[in-house]
Amino acid sequence: MSLKPSPLAPAALPRLAPVPGVRIATTESGLRYKNRPDLCLFELAPGSVVAGVLTRSLTCSASVDWCKAGIKGGGKARAILVNAGNANAFTGKLGMDAVKALGAAVGKLLGAPAKQVFQASTGVIGVPLPAEKLTPLLPGLQKQLGDDAWEQAARAILTTDTYAKGASVATEIAGTPVTITGVCKGSGMIAPDMATMLAFVATDAKLPQPVLQAILAPAADASFNAITVDGDTSTSDTLLLVATGQAKHAKVERAGDPRLKAFKAALRALLIDLAQQVVKDGEGAEKFVTVTVTGAASKGAARRIGLAIANSPLVKTAIAGADANWGRVVMAVGKSGEKADRDRLGVSIGGVLVAAKGAVVPGYDETPVARHMKGRDILIEVDVGIGKGSATVWTCDLTHGYIDINADYRS
Amino acid sequence: MSLKPSPLAPAALPRLAPVPGVRIATTESGLRYKNRPDLCLFELAPGSVVAGVLTRSLTCSASVDWCKAGIKGGGKARAILVNAGNANAFTGKLGMDAVKALGAAVGKLLGAPAKQVFQASTGVIGVPLPAEKLTPLLPGLQKQLGDDAWEQAARAILTTDTYAKGASVATEIAGTPVTITGVCKGSGMIAPDMATMLAFVATDAKLPQPVLQAILAPAADASFNAITVDGDTSTSDTLLLVATGQAKHAKVERAGDPRLKAFKAALRALLIDLAQQVVKDGEGAEKFVTVTVTGAASKGAARRIGLAIANSPLVKTAIAGADANWGRVVMAVGKSGEKADRDRLGVSIGGVLVAAKGAVVPGYDETPVARHMKGRDILIEVDVGIGKGSATVWTCDLTHGYIDINADYRS
Repeated sequence: MSLKPSPLAPAALPRLAPVPGVRIATTESGLRYKNRPDLCLFELAPGSVVAGVLTRSLTCSASVDWCKAGIKGGGKARAILVNAGNANAFTGKLGMDAVKALGAAVGKLLGAPAKQVFQASTGVIGVPLPAEKLTPLLPGLQKQLGDDAWEQAARAILTTDTYAKGASVATEIAGTPVTITGVCKGSGMIAPDMATMLAFVATDAKLPQPVLQAILAPAADASFNAITVDGDTSTSDTLLLVATGQAKHAKVERAGDPRLKAFKAALRALLIDLAQQVVKDGEGAEKFVTVTVTGAASKGAARRIGLAIANSPLVKTAIAGADANWGRVVMAVGKSGEKADRDRLGVSIGGVLVAAKGAVVPGYDETPVARHMKGRDILIEVDVGIGKGSATVWTCDLTHGYIDINADYRS
Repeated sequence: MSLKPSPLAPAALPRLAPVPGVRIATTESGLRYKNRPDLCLFELAPGSVVAGVLTRSLTCSASVDWCKAGIKGGGKARAILVNAGNANAFTGKLGMDAVKALGAAVGKLLGAPAKQVFQASTGVIGVPLPAEKLTPLLPGLQKQLGDDAWEQAARAILTTDTYAKGASVATEIAGTPVTITGVCKGSGMIAPDMATMLAFVATDAKLPQPVLQAILAPAADASFNAITVDGDTSTSDTLLLVATGQAKHAKVERAGDPRLKAFKAALRALLIDLAQQVVKDGEGAEKFVTVTVTGAASKGAARRIGLAIANSPLVKTAIAGADANWGRVVMAVGKSGEKADRDRLGVSIGGVLVAAKGAVVPGYDETPVARHMKGRDILIEVDVGIGKGSATVWTCDLTHGYIDINADYRS
């Protein structure tokens, strides 16, 4: 089926700056898609390290197992190989055989151990990935490797996405300029921890792997783990952050080093940008929804309440129908299981206070709220009124488009 | 909007046998609906007791708070008043004022304390229930009370339901015949603990309230708490079981008494019947789905895995599209958070083993499975392969109809 572009799509993919130490090539494997690149190789300079946040699904794919082992083993990385169209998940021993074969084949080309070839696969579950159809393409990929091919990577990793996603920022560490560039994909099965979501981010910063990991985890929580399209969690979710070490900044050895402040902020902003691009391409999405929760018992409670609202099919369909049905927001708070007090709860929509202290505000005029609900950007704010925990999560509405796409994905 | 009847609707409402000690009347309040009864009074004989399972939502309605207090206070009951169209939820002090006023008004008519007038409201959240518009209707309701009016009750409590729901069974206690009859409503916002679901069940058995409550709880877990339409939990869910004590059976004073065996089985079967009627009227439902989980670490784990599958939008849309996408079932098991081992997992669809030991079965032929998926009754069986816990849950598919109904409910 052909998908119409999301009405929330950005006007264009931004310029994705090259990252010293990263070369990229893409090609058409012909495995699932016709006439579009679906296989992508990132070559990483010697000395590169990778940090990662991967799906917690107990039925995760072979490539997720492989990446987890690679990170646990120290995170040295020389390449990332990504294919779109086949998730290589729930494929038993054949799945891991394919990952090993591809790791060995790429490693041989680059003169690196197989385990330094990180891998990610996305697409249909349960169909073994035919490594033997991909390995013959690898020498050609290697020949095409280029410094300035992030946009090609952004396109090659897509599945049901309707547009390519990427972002790039310039920042500094100890006064030395460094670049962070990333691409990602994902449109359905998007939920925290994590999503049918792949994201590959690289920087030329020179950081020890444990420092990189310590920086990545909270940034992932504030970004990819704060978005949801349908509450479903994929078997394949992978966020990898590579540091090639090509930048010549002063040595930094602790995640708490104050000289990392700008870098951390830039990384966090970049990941939030990428995560929001994913939500805006949520399957069938027509509205982008920001849910802010304040006054919860803790930060975690605020996030769980926010996700209960953002995942509620009744809230999401009301938004699709431009219906300022704040009662459903109250319902979602109630079902979150988090501490709340009906008689202290406040709800605002589009900046207008709708309900406070357990009831609709006196003289409530729905006119400005109804106008807000007709827009593309919806803001729902909930004040739980019992503590100081706050969090923001993002989602999209639930429309006929979601059903169209998901009732028909394999056919 | 007008709703087309669910294609899963039963041919007709079964005959609902009168229950000695229960009289019923319904009328049109004009509050929300036009030209249909939406207010229902159950008069209960003196000596009646009531047990209940009510929503755990922290933002529950005033009438839920009222019923919980009534049960906690011993469960003596002389009436149940139910209105459809206004949930009287999140209505602050005005909500409880309305409940108190209605309790007092019905109590005065029947010569009973207000607290013995149980109440339930379903419909839009956030609009205070105007008790003053209902109280003038109560004397008329009282005059119309009849023994054989369960069908009228089944119709008066509906909201977005497309058909009336009820069931009746004849059973015995210690050799003496007793009747159990019940009605219920609910079509969206259906999820365990509990749902926008109201169910009123009565029997002429003579049982102490604590015994009645002890019998009801596990039967509710196996029925209403094992169904889900959209994973959303309502502020109003109420299941009440009345025992009028009119049957002249031998005294039974313990829930564990073996003479209650037939009664318990009958009650459980009746509640499962009612719960399945609710799922089959799930908003937009076109297929009825049974999910059976075996081999889980515990009964609770099996139920949670079953609900993760039954609540997954991706599983539900695949079913809507008659797509035997078992990979999404695997995904849902993985995200349930329950103990599972990918390499021991087995999945059957329509009785055909599709995947075992972490991979698709050798020579898998999708033909019979695809045929099964085109039917109205879908069976998904998952064997987790690690323990002895099992559970069955029921749901429906996620279709365009759900979006139509829920994007437009208030307008």
